[in-house]
Amino acid sequence: MNETIGFIGLGVLGSAMAGNLIKTGFTVIGHDIVLEKQKAFEREGGQSGASPRDVGDKSDVIVLCLPTSKALHEVVGGKDGLLEGGREGQIVLETSTFAIADKESARDALAATGKILLDCPLSGNRLLALKRKLTAFGSGDKAAYEAVKHVIQGFAHRTFFVGEFGCGMKMKFCSNILNLVHNSVAAEVMVLGMKSGLDPELIHQVISGSGSSSSMFEVRGALMVDEDYNKEGMNFSIPLKDSRLISTHAADHLCPIPIYQAALQPYYAAVAQGHHDEDASAVCAALELAANHTRKKKKKN
Amino acid sequence: MNETIGFIGLGVLGSAMAGNLIKTGFTVIGHDIVLEKQKAFEREGGQSGASPRDVGDKSDVIVLCLPTSKALHEVVGGKDGLLEGGREGQIVLETSTFAIADKESARDALAATGKILLDCPLSGNRLLALKRKLTAFGSGDKAAYEAVKHVIQGFAHRTFFVGEFGCGMKMKFCSNILNLVHNSVAAEVMVLGMKSGLDPELIHQVISGSGSSSSMFEVRGALMVDEDYNKEGMNFSIPLKDSRLISTHAADHLCPIPIYQAALQPYYAAVAQGHHDEDASAVCAALELAANHTRKKKKKN
Amino acid sequence: MNETIGFIGLGVLGSAMAGNLIKTGFTVIGHDIVLEKQKAFEREGGQSGASPRDVGDKSDVIVLCLPTSKALHEVVGGKDGLLEGGREGQIVLETSTFAIADKESARDALAATGKILLDCPLSGNRLLALKRKLTAFGSGDKAAYEAVKHVIQGFAHRTFFVGEFGCGMKMKFCSNILNLVHNSVAAEVMVLGMKSGLDPELIHQVISGSGSSSSMFEVRGALMVDEDYNKEGMNFSIPLKDSRLISTHAADHLCPIPIYQAALQPYYAAVAQGHHDEDASAVCAALELAANHTRKKKKKN
Amino acid sequence: MNETIGFIGLGVLGSAMAGNLIKTGFTVIGHDIVLEKQKAFEREGGQSGASPRDVGDKSDVIVLCLPTSKALHEVVGGKDGLLEGGREGQIVLETSTFAIADKESARDALAATGKILLDCPLSGNRLLALKRKLTAFGSGDKAAYEAVKHVIQGFAHRTFFVGEFGCGMKMKFCSNILNLVHNSVAAEVMVLGMKSGLDPELIHQVISGSGSSSSMFEVRGALMVDEDYNKEGMNFSIPLKDSRLISTHAADHLCPIPIYQAALQPYYAAVAQGHHDEDASAVCAALELAANHTRKKKKKN
Repeated sequence: MNETIGFIGLGVLGSAMAGNLIKTGFTVIGHDIVLEKQKAFEREGGQSGASPRDVGDKSDVIVLCLPTSKALHEVVGGKDGLLEGGREGQIVLETSTFAIADKESARDALAATGKILLDCPLSGNRLLALKRKLTAFGSGDKAAYEAVKHVIQGFAHRTFFVGEFGCGMKMKFCSNILNLVHNSVAAEVMVLGMKSGLDPELIHQVISGSGSSSSMFEVRGALMVDEDYNKEGMNFSIPLKDSRLISTHAADHLCPIPIYQAALQPYYAAVAQGHHDEDASAVCAALELAANHTRKKKKKN
Repeated sequence: MNETIGFIGLGVLGSAMAGNLIKTGFTVIGHDIVLEKQKAFEREGGQSGASPRDVGDKSDVIVLCLPTSKALHEVVGGKDGLLEGGREGQIVLETSTFAIADKESARDALAATGKILLDCPLSGNRLLALKRKLTAFGSGDKAAYEAVKHVIQGFAHRTFFVGEFGCGMKMKFCSNILNLVHNSVAAEVMVLGMKSGLDPELIHQVISGSGSSSSMFEVRGALMVDEDYNKEGMNFSIPLKDSRLISTHAADHLCPIPIYQAALQPYYAAVAQGHHDEDASAVCAALELAANHTRKKKKKN
Repeated sequence: MNETIGFIGLGVLGSAMAGNLIKTGFTVIGHDIVLEKQKAFEREGGQSGASPRDVGDKSDVIVLCLPTSKALHEVVGGKDGLLEGGREGQIVLETSTFAIADKESARDALAATGKILLDCPLSGNRLLALKRKLTAFGSGDKAAYEAVKHVIQGFAHRTFFVGEFGCGMKMKFCSNILNLVHNSVAAEVMVLGMKSGLDPELIHQVISGSGSSSSMFEVRGALMVDEDYNKEGMNFSIPLKDSRLISTHAADHLCPIPIYQAALQPYYAAVAQGHHDEDASAVCAALELAANHTRKKKKKN
Repeated sequence: MNETIGFIGLGVLGSAMAGNLIKTGFTVIGHDIVLEKQKAFEREGGQSGASPRDVGDKSDVIVLCLPTSKALHEVVGGKDGLLEGGREGQIVLETSTFAIADKESARDALAATGKILLDCPLSGNRLLALKRKLTAFGSGDKAAYEAVKHVIQGFAHRTFFVGEFGCGMKMKFCSNILNLVHNSVAAEVMVLGMKSGLDPELIHQVISGSGSSSSMFEVRGALMVDEDYNKEGMNFSIPLKDSRLISTHAADHLCPIPIYQAALQPYYAAVAQGHHDEDASAVCAALELAANHTRKKKKKN
């Protein structure tokens, strides 16, 4: 199975994914507009492609992991973009989180040159990516998905086919709503508990593993207990960026999402208060400020 | 360890708990104002006490599992109540969900006759109670808690000592807030997903076990998928009753709880729409009505 | 029409109302458990009654303006209470804001001695009361209301008969919900406007008098512009007390009130941050803290 | 002062505004891409311009009232657009509601040909426009604003200069937030009142004119009382379109707007339930459905 995988976008997440594809045994040809990142990728055992087109020409399957929909537009239709190279029937995996309409534009442009774009967003962060613990929501042409499923499994331990093109993003929105609400309500409960005299560590211990718990409560609640918001994790930039897509998506479908909107507002407060680059569990600090709560013992670190 | 446990309140939850105490090997003397329930209890191997006072006289430790704070008031200070019998140093476990002030009144009244009341609310429902899978939040006199911990373990598989008297209730409020928000947001996500074209069963399958999941999402999400709201579980009466205690508790501590309040509102809608006696996962039906969503395939049952 | 009006409860609001009854030409016999207040009332031209019973014996119509439902219970059924004196057919106006059930208890007790209680809460504050600008929501026996309408007009410039006993309180809840939401959203808009670079005074000037305005926006928005929260007005104690009645009332009727609940949460934050004794327009300060907004120019006073 | 005003966009609002400019005594040259609308305009006494460029060549001042930012882009920079004609120093009034960034693009493009764009959104609807009762929020170059203030007054009875370019839109956002929240909370109060037994007409009568009232409550509350949602007014399309701009604006400034978001959600429900083309007071119908309230007497019309 000596397949060659093209990988465009070697950033925080992409570099971890591409690294796992190499470890899995694929030949990986990577490209990033930042030279530095490409060099780092070579040190991990990857080969460099000069442009999206070059990557397309040299690869069987292509994976995209890009920061903005503008970058997607460039990678596909820009100078030396994917449209200019590759081959008929080539499958391209779009793993980023963009508006469905933007992904559809890219799909249509690629289809005109015989290529097949799959919408395949991921759930997880760099820490999980390094451990190959991402979840993939594949959608689009089912046969194409089946044909590249083994590639997806090179960076994701859970992979699902979730329906026609765009369903991947829709599932990702569901996932993100739960993440954000579970995180915010964990903070709400921590602050109410502390204000009424409970020890935060005890709250975390008692709830974890019970029917009242969530993954977010367990992972991020631990950071709230320790006020340890500088851990490498997921800062506020991704959830706030995604919140615009989610709000638009729900509005397009005329679907009220009052709980999500209520849980989102303290994110703005947290960032306005200077926590942007911290883990999103720092939403707890914003709620403590609102409730005028001061912890007795100082933070551990 | 041939101890005798008194058990007052043999309702939906209490009868399951008392049954497990019998199975554990305790002699259990039960009492309920409804004769029917006392008879049923005898068929399970229990003995009947004529009154709270009688139960107190014949037992080492007493467990209370009552429907209202008024019942607590009666059981403690009413005619043939606990105040009239029992013995110095006797430990009484109050496992119900009442306002802390009401439990404090009972504690003070019992203390005047040398008895020790522990505030020890439980998390779980009848299904979990039958499997001895309740969680207990013990609080009050720590030595007393340690002395009866083995009794608590006769009906709860997870037991915690969470602080001074009333901390049990405070922990229970934290637990209940998470339960309700996790349930409501599971419905919010299900409805948004369905409205945008995702299959609900697939949403449940993909999210379950992921970092976006919660216990509530997994247990109640499954009922939402099947629109199977008649399962024996937890209907709306308990969470709505508890919501009054939680709102008052948060107000007393001047602590905003906007996410809980947002997630609570559809519970009123669900009950107003006739779902009171169904499992609280039926909040999903209220959200579907609001979003004017009609499922393609009919419910399974 | 030389009628004698009894007035029980000569506090912040009651003293202003009783003063206006005197000015209108009534003989007013007042009572308050605080001697100081009774003395002040005499200086305003009132006569003192020794007890509720004494007031009842000497008056044609009785007005109650009390701080707590416990006080109502005492005034009616306590030692030397209204039940012990007065006369058959005597009309008692209950103008306070209490749970309907508490007012119903008082009504039933008085009815047993042939007296007629009207539920007649008021909208307004001391400033408006001094100017005889209160609004009265009369409810209960319609003939009784008509018989004492001229008395109500002695302290309220707008009087309405709004239905059977308790409808007064229900209308008051509607009124209070609007007050609180209009105040909170005025602050929300002020803070968003200021954060995006608008001058708060200009916001207030442009919106006032337009179709986007509310009374609250005009009155309290002016205080927000000046950060002038120490004016004699309506501090946080009344709206927070009333919020418990409103939440319970809506829950009793299974009616979601998500906007009110969202608008109420910053009140807790404001009080937790130390603004309890300031005018409720200080909710703006809590929102500025959350949004981390600092005003350029200092407050005027 | 025989000035000639160019008017581009003769839709629902624009035709009413242009009509008033004619009545004020201006010569008005109108243009719309829909020929029908241009013909109607001629019947009102206007003259037709063949294109934006033609309008620009023949006018002293130009007013834009357009449906989409794409239309703005076309009118300014498209074939036969404003960039191709007009004169140095010509002032263009942009009265629509678009993202500030879109208006800034137009401003910059026009500035390159020496023209001055003012951001001057309006508050009001067609009914108010016909009565010349719009409110204008002028912003940008102050001298330019002063120079055309008399033109603005030809269609708006209240005109304000609110700051640098874009401040007009910011003020409009403040105004719209209040409009939407006041409308939704009016419905919330109406439904709670009705569910608890109050007559809706009485609620409207008692609150109107009191300190609890708002313009929206008075105007739209009356429609809620009558369930008369088909009146010519403001349907859901504008507030839902504007809500995207407002949410983005608040997110850009990291400003929580929880009350607005809570009040916005029932708008989606109302539209999902089929009320899109009705007046936005129909949000009341969505809340009645949620609370499962059925009115006793039928609607009047």
